[in-house]
Amino acid sequence: MGMTMTQKILAAHAGLAEVKAGQLIEADLDLVLGNDITTPVAVNEMKKMDNQTVFNHDKIALVMDHFIPNKDIKSAENCKCCREFACRHDITNYFDVGEMGIEHALLPEKGLVVAGDAVIGADSHTCTYGALGAFSTGVGSTDMAAGMVTGKAWFKVPSAIKFNLIGKPAKWVSGKDVILHIIGMIGVDGALYRSMEFVGEGIKNLSMDDRFTICNMAIEAGGKNGIFPVDEKTIEYLKEHSKRDFKVYEADPDAEYDEEYTIDLSELKPTVSFPHLPENTRTIDEVGDIAIDQVVIGSCTNGRIEDMRIAAEILKGRKVKKGLRCIVIPATQAIYLQSMKEGLLETFIEAGAVVSTPTCGPCLGGYMGILAEGERCVSTTNRNFVGRMGHVDSEIYLASPAVAAASAITGKVSGPAELGL
Amino acid sequence: MGMTMTQKILAAHAGLAEVKAGQLIEADLDLVLGNDITTPVAVNEMKKMDNQTVFNHDKIALVMDHFIPNKDIKSAENCKCCREFACRHDITNYFDVGEMGIEHALLPEKGLVVAGDAVIGADSHTCTYGALGAFSTGVGSTDMAAGMVTGKAWFKVPSAIKFNLIGKPAKWVSGKDVILHIIGMIGVDGALYRSMEFVGEGIKNLSMDDRFTICNMAIEAGGKNGIFPVDEKTIEYLKEHSKRDFKVYEADPDAEYDEEYTIDLSELKPTVSFPHLPENTRTIDEVGDIAIDQVVIGSCTNGRIEDMRIAAEILKGRKVKKGLRCIVIPATQAIYLQSMKEGLLETFIEAGAVVSTPTCGPCLGGYMGILAEGERCVSTTNRNFVGRMGHVDSEIYLASPAVAAASAITGKVSGPAELGL
Repeated sequence: MGMTMTQKILAAHAGLAEVKAGQLIEADLDLVLGNDITTPVAVNEMKKMDNQTVFNHDKIALVMDHFIPNKDIKSAENCKCCREFACRHDITNYFDVGEMGIEHALLPEKGLVVAGDAVIGADSHTCTYGALGAFSTGVGSTDMAAGMVTGKAWFKVPSAIKFNLIGKPAKWVSGKDVILHIIGMIGVDGALYRSMEFVGEGIKNLSMDDRFTICNMAIEAGGKNGIFPVDEKTIEYLKEHSKRDFKVYEADPDAEYDEEYTIDLSELKPTVSFPHLPENTRTIDEVGDIAIDQVVIGSCTNGRIEDMRIAAEILKGRKVKKGLRCIVIPATQAIYLQSMKEGLLETFIEAGAVVSTPTCGPCLGGYMGILAEGERCVSTTNRNFVGRMGHVDSEIYLASPAVAAASAITGKVSGPAELGL
Repeated sequence: MGMTMTQKILAAHAGLAEVKAGQLIEADLDLVLGNDITTPVAVNEMKKMDNQTVFNHDKIALVMDHFIPNKDIKSAENCKCCREFACRHDITNYFDVGEMGIEHALLPEKGLVVAGDAVIGADSHTCTYGALGAFSTGVGSTDMAAGMVTGKAWFKVPSAIKFNLIGKPAKWVSGKDVILHIIGMIGVDGALYRSMEFVGEGIKNLSMDDRFTICNMAIEAGGKNGIFPVDEKTIEYLKEHSKRDFKVYEADPDAEYDEEYTIDLSELKPTVSFPHLPENTRTIDEVGDIAIDQVVIGSCTNGRIEDMRIAAEILKGRKVKKGLRCIVIPATQAIYLQSMKEGLLETFIEAGAVVSTPTCGPCLGGYMGILAEGERCVSTTNRNFVGRMGHVDSEIYLASPAVAAASAITGKVSGPAELGL
């Protein structure tokens, strides 16, 4: 029986010719990731272990992104812990204020993940790197600690769901709409502990940024990972960002999938996840009249350069609705700088939005746009759980940058069509 | 006996031909200011009063600046309270995310304070507007509430200290060095409840931004207010920013001063206030070897366009010391935009600094750069009290943007001279 892409990567990293779904394996890791919330916990776990040395100081990435520049004393102490740990172990890829960025946007940009890699990260959205044809998944801080020491991790080999993407998305339909549509279809546990493998001729119509967004939210369907095949776009991206060798793994023709879905991208509409689960999706023509208080455009899901361009295209020459707060958060310093050079930041400011330093910020209720009681936010982030962005009686509507930007103008949940776009 | 500038403004606003130091008067107010911390308290006080209507909806300015975009649920609730109050009373000058800025940079920029005004604000640095030849002073939230309802405030007429400024400051010596020098000379209670009146031929060598900085920190010497005479630069500024009529009050030749000092600006050196009081000043050649962890360039004291230009001039083509966090905070959206257009923000990012949305942020330990235990920060802000910017065992060194930027490069408290500038 053949293997899926994910299974092939895991087999290779476990030194096995073949693996099967459900099999327990130990895999070599190409990268172990932690952030300013999860790393201090891992550092503390490492202290309890006999072997307190890291397996390879080049293969650990520590990214300060959730609460920096330090939000409060606790986050300052957490960052200090990470900084000292990075210094003590001579961690090559330590990212702090100045070279900062949201981890899942930063690592691909810095070329630290390439096709064929096996990556764990103490952050649930580590699954993002599947866009590059890598196996990557979120783990807890204890697993991160073990990974930093041993360079290995135990996995139960996942089975898979195949998503056959065909057709070309319409203008204003992007990766976010694709993944929200899928989560709406299969539910937040629809892919529980399984690989979400995206294939089909429609893939060529998805940019790398679309693919990052799609894989990023695999976890929101319960997926162990999301993964795309490597095509010309992937190779171009890898060559532009990384000097590392990469390896392309293709699913066997006789690979087995638990389920298969075909999705015609040309039929998708801008999609919104209503409170309080990503699976509560409605297409933009079904949303009704929902007045909002805030818009957030950013996060590891949608803070990349294409997201900035789409938002700017809509905000250009328009004004954010009076009384509404529109917060734009480029995901990395490089994206911030590029957005500035292209005039996008100027467009945002002139429209009445604010531009934040790169940070996870409001996505997880950190800072930079927390909601009061009864407030509603359209957000390009990835989770709309109760109280995720502030008060337990606030509401989050997940959407694409296009919908978020249009909603910022109208003051209610809206698609670009409402602006005649 | 003659009156000082401050006394003349107060007399005019009290409808009196003459006032004397120590006299209790009731003055008409041209503007009542509150921010996102102090306004909710004032709103609550207003609820207790019989008359819950504001005296004039054009003469109240509410500026959300300390913790926005909302840092946490509490600040979100506070902003919501202000927003609803502003809506209920149709407050003309309500500033939220999008048109935001630090109150004391924003009000002059928006032309809301002009020469001859009497202004109270529920924020201690309200004394900033003395740079425009206005009387302005910080009050508590209860006084703010009374001011919003009655349009009046009670004052004990202050006596005054005269600061006779002569000469021209050297390159890299700015308003911040002038006021730090003065506070070092007279102490943090050296001007307690008195006007600090700045006069002399040296004034022409101080830009408006220098004067804002100097008046801003009058409170750090205990002053009731700081004030500059109106000259050509002031008039040019007023005409550029405001359509309101202004009135020039000059001190009588026989006005009485408690004390008089003459300060030769040409003799001043870059000056640093050591922990934990602004009066602990040393000139840059006396600072010794103080390694630092963070630099903050911003605040109502030094977040204006000239401050950005000075910092950029030093950071241009250089790199922030590895391991040091350099946080730049343009004080208003207009300053942010202007800095972007002039290429200053690009310079900051390329040097390895981060650029924040306009906010008070770290200055008062809010967010955006809080210090961990044992950390040291060179900051262009106004207070270096114990724990002001984070942990009680952290340290703040107050300095000008030039010193802050140079320190960001060297990683220790440094003047531009250390860079050969």
